[in-house]
Amino acid sequence: LSPAKVAKSERRGWIIPIGGGEKKVNSPTILSQFANVCGGENARIAIIPTASQLPDTGARYQSVFHDIGVDHTVVIDAETRQDCEDQGRLDALEQATGIFMTGGNQLRLSTTIGGTAMAKSIRRHNADGVPVAGTSAGAAFLCEHMIAVGRSGPTPRHGKASLAPGLGLTNRAIIDQHFRERDRLGRLLTALAFNPFATGIGVDEDTAAFIGPDNVIEVHGSGGLTIIDPSDIEYSSMDLARAGKPISLMGVKLHILLEGDRYDMATHSATPGAQAGK
Amino acid sequence: LSPAKVAKSERRGWIIPIGGGEKKVNSPTILSQFANVCGGENARIAIIPTASQLPDTGARYQSVFHDIGVDHTVVIDAETRQDCEDQGRLDALEQATGIFMTGGNQLRLSTTIGGTAMAKSIRRHNADGVPVAGTSAGAAFLCEHMIAVGRSGPTPRHGKASLAPGLGLTNRAIIDQHFRERDRLGRLLTALAFNPFATGIGVDEDTAAFIGPDNVIEVHGSGGLTIIDPSDIEYSSMDLARAGKPISLMGVKLHILLEGDRYDMATHSATPGAQAGK
Repeated sequence: LSPAKVAKSERRGWIIPIGGGEKKVNSPTILSQFANVCGGENARIAIIPTASQLPDTGARYQSVFHDIGVDHTVVIDAETRQDCEDQGRLDALEQATGIFMTGGNQLRLSTTIGGTAMAKSIRRHNADGVPVAGTSAGAAFLCEHMIAVGRSGPTPRHGKASLAPGLGLTNRAIIDQHFRERDRLGRLLTALAFNPFATGIGVDEDTAAFIGPDNVIEVHGSGGLTIIDPSDIEYSSMDLARAGKPISLMGVKLHILLEGDRYDMATHSATPGAQAGK
Repeated sequence: LSPAKVAKSERRGWIIPIGGGEKKVNSPTILSQFANVCGGENARIAIIPTASQLPDTGARYQSVFHDIGVDHTVVIDAETRQDCEDQGRLDALEQATGIFMTGGNQLRLSTTIGGTAMAKSIRRHNADGVPVAGTSAGAAFLCEHMIAVGRSGPTPRHGKASLAPGLGLTNRAIIDQHFRERDRLGRLLTALAFNPFATGIGVDEDTAAFIGPDNVIEVHGSGGLTIIDPSDIEYSSMDLARAGKPISLMGVKLHILLEGDRYDMATHSATPGAQAGK
């Protein structure tokens, strides 16, 4: 489940976690920007509604993308692990220039798609340059380490975040969604404290982190990203904390980024967007 | 934290989880076999006692390896994240032909070493062919997905296993240790049920899984390996289960392997050892 190898002549596709609640009518900025990086009017977007239990989720996004100007969309109804091995569905996915996973329950994504031919196909597409976006549960599922369940609140506590293996498009980041709306700073800090090698990306609603092939993140949307850089943590009591108790964490670095701002996960540096200082 | 890239001319080193309680005197089979793959009498073994809180753990293993015939050992006392960036310790590690991590608490390993120069060095060594072994907590830490904490018992239950990012030498396996002694089938099944892409390796005490560069596992020691292959799971209720409740899992394949038996993680096939059928 490490990222599929990027062929030398290719560049990895965008990885695009969306915090949930993205605008779908009247200037749907994020979905339009996603359609742009997938080829604009020539995009062929595969919609995977597996996380959702509602029967019309896929069709609803087809309609939204149609209104944006993308005529070629296909809903891949993968409800079981058998569906994820089905050649017809894999063939439909093969044509995609962009892949979009809806919200719902991220454990439905990992238990249904994880380890199947469909998971391999999505990883291969992304390694070959195809953008892969997910909103809410779809965002949580994108990376190698996924927050499966957790509790709200600002303080990191033993047991506040429970991790599970995700799709594995990158392992440099751990995503959390509905971030400030649901007060999830504590659970993202907890998830990072286990092993402070990754960057935490808390994504607000109607906001997206466009993670480029160079692992530079661009912010789009009306909310913000909370970037948590644990690389210089000086002390953590995670290994000593007992169930439910708070955790000491010293030396965590935090960035709040808005539309147009950037963050480089390789160099751990943030850069203001073009609107800054004007 | 994906496996460091293996150079074309090199082969990855052995990855060797030991279930804890390995014999240290009178035919210490596993540690002798580890010393052999590290170069035998010419081995230079770096011992990392970070997981342990006891001051003499490193020296004790030095003595054991000396009795086996390995004169060149060094204890890398990495107690803080700052220690893991220290050039003197990194230089000592640089010379190793084998790396051994002791038991203790796996969260002490991940919180102390995770994301540091020492973690990068161990990953690079292993990618370049150097064997890396760990016993008990040291075994848990080896892979990309590590069981951080959990509960005993045979039944998989929501919340029975809590995962965290480990060292990441491979992501094909999830390890559990003291396996049958502490009745951990339920927690390993739970860990695998989140995303059934990995192979579960339950390692008994005084037993080791020697995972080769070709991802074929050989068993050594007096106990057994419990291999759990979730790749053909037909149904799982992991996404529906509530906190503490049991999980349905249909179609899990199980193998119990003893000394000399092998398991190929790529083809999901087990092969009896030479002693079988004689």
